[in-house]
Amino acid sequence: MGQSQSAEPVTVSELGEHALLARIRARLSCAPGSADGLVLGIGDDAAVVRSGRNALTVLTVDALVEGVHFERRLSAPPDIGARAVAVNLSDLAAMGADPRWALVSLMVPATLPVGDVDGLMDGLAEEAGRFGVTVIGGNITRSPGPLVVDLTAVGEVGPRRLVTRAGGRPGDELYLSGTIGGAAAGLAMLRADASGVEGGAACVQRYRRPIPRVRLGRQVGRSRAARAMMDLSDGLADAAHQIAEASGCGVEIDAESLPIEPGASAWWSSRGDDVIVAALTGGDDYELLLAVPPSWRGRLRMVRERVADPPLTRVGVLTKDPGARVLCRDGRRDRLPGGFEHF
Amino acid sequence: MGQSQSAEPVTVSELGEHALLARIRARLSCAPGSADGLVLGIGDDAAVVRSGRNALTVLTVDALVEGVHFERRLSAPPDIGARAVAVNLSDLAAMGADPRWALVSLMVPATLPVGDVDGLMDGLAEEAGRFGVTVIGGNITRSPGPLVVDLTAVGEVGPRRLVTRAGGRPGDELYLSGTIGGAAAGLAMLRADASGVEGGAACVQRYRRPIPRVRLGRQVGRSRAARAMMDLSDGLADAAHQIAEASGCGVEIDAESLPIEPGASAWWSSRGDDVIVAALTGGDDYELLLAVPPSWRGRLRMVRERVADPPLTRVGVLTKDPGARVLCRDGRRDRLPGGFEHF
Repeated sequence: MGQSQSAEPVTVSELGEHALLARIRARLSCAPGSADGLVLGIGDDAAVVRSGRNALTVLTVDALVEGVHFERRLSAPPDIGARAVAVNLSDLAAMGADPRWALVSLMVPATLPVGDVDGLMDGLAEEAGRFGVTVIGGNITRSPGPLVVDLTAVGEVGPRRLVTRAGGRPGDELYLSGTIGGAAAGLAMLRADASGVEGGAACVQRYRRPIPRVRLGRQVGRSRAARAMMDLSDGLADAAHQIAEASGCGVEIDAESLPIEPGASAWWSSRGDDVIVAALTGGDDYELLLAVPPSWRGRLRMVRERVADPPLTRVGVLTKDPGARVLCRDGRRDRLPGGFEHF
Repeated sequence: MGQSQSAEPVTVSELGEHALLARIRARLSCAPGSADGLVLGIGDDAAVVRSGRNALTVLTVDALVEGVHFERRLSAPPDIGARAVAVNLSDLAAMGADPRWALVSLMVPATLPVGDVDGLMDGLAEEAGRFGVTVIGGNITRSPGPLVVDLTAVGEVGPRRLVTRAGGRPGDELYLSGTIGGAAAGLAMLRADASGVEGGAACVQRYRRPIPRVRLGRQVGRSRAARAMMDLSDGLADAAHQIAEASGCGVEIDAESLPIEPGASAWWSSRGDDVIVAALTGGDDYELLLAVPPSWRGRLRMVRERVADPPLTRVGVLTKDPGARVLCRDGRRDRLPGGFEHF
């Protein structure tokens, strides 16, 4: 360690994603209150600024990079375009916001067939239209490497309807929308050319066309049914870690309760994988995780009445005791696995 | 042509940028009025949506891609970060808007030294801070290819202060801020390892650290001193073509009037290049081009009194006669060269 000054410079992959993010945040420090109108800066699912006396604007950006987030041989162009919209609307939904606008920044290899750009835009426009989002602008440039679709999404939310990651308290129950594991298993199936297995089509669909939980997120905000909320882009374990950390709590996930996509369970079992670990760490599901005090169950019932699909499952609890654990079938408590690191 | 169905698919580079943009716009069609609150969609320097009774939000996105927009051996990391901010603030300035917020989407090769990310962020934060812009969010992901800095900038403008590309009319005089050619010559000098020539340092600085004309653009909007305005990212010829097309006019540029950066003139002369053509087509200057009716010269004077730097130079006129021409020293009228095509 003492000799590190003379060594090769540290690379981003050696540093790791979390440390890199911390460094970047320190350099861009923008605490709420540091700028007039800033409500929430870097660190949540999306940023929030004041846009009127009783209106907040919510902004988020997320890139899909070929070879990192998708492969052209596994996803058709319309799937890629739709996915770019979905992952961003998921971030807005996690704040309780209504999605309104999108800007798309494309980086396109010169050799890409024009038909692929058409397909990409068709998928993007279709998914945006499905949620009432208008693509108002963007940018296009040549890429000397991967195809990149970088999308900025803008939404609106009333100040009292905003739900952040940071509001949870010990004792809050964690509820998860839909099922998990489908997207990760679907991707594995596609890579193994095995999407014909039982339940495989549903998993592949979960991977190729994630559904942002826009109606659910908005209703949670309107009903004020959660103290904290976030989306699951990098898996349940990662989300649980993050919501606990942001809320200053510990977290315990009940392994037996997990709503695992049936095709994913069958796939992992057949491969000899640990189904629970795979379901906790698999990414790309874009479900919502809510922290709900037991006394707010009535509000949650109202949400369920108004948005029946996807269902909500109680999967754990925020704890006073710091740390992140998973409660196993035999009553043993294991350390909750870490999330996905992008570097 | 009749056999094209059986041929190889057409690639984006074969189609060219303008045709590609037209295809994309057709797929994302979002005419003003097509969505509640949409004021200006794809096609201007930035998009505009209504954010309150008397407030518009202006949004733009622009990516810097390694190997396309910058080379790491020619620009230091802080220059790249600052540039990502500057090119976007230039788009907001071209609408008459006040810049407020930015989101930064980074795509980083795993082998990039952490110190380079630090430098990038420092330059970005410094340039944002210079113009009162707060970086409120973003995204970071691994890149299997180039380093990419994709920035979304958000500004505000009063409805009566908004200036688009489309308002020009025949007879409007075209005014250009600052000088042109510096950035293109500076880049050529860097590539030729010849930045030590006379006037070279100023040109290199223009390339490495473009200055967005934020105060000027805002003042033009406040004084309602231009009927149309845009920025010069791809050169004066390109901007003249675009402002004329958007305004349904022709355009004539007076070659003798061009405020060419002295170091750039000297550089091109020494290389035997046509200085006028080089100055018209060189990109990356980020000056503003204004269309001003002769009867509004008083308003323009007010702008000049309040924002003395950069100076404004009359460089041409919008014409009834369609087409784009350049008036040469000998009275000859040539066709105005085309702009830069990214594909």
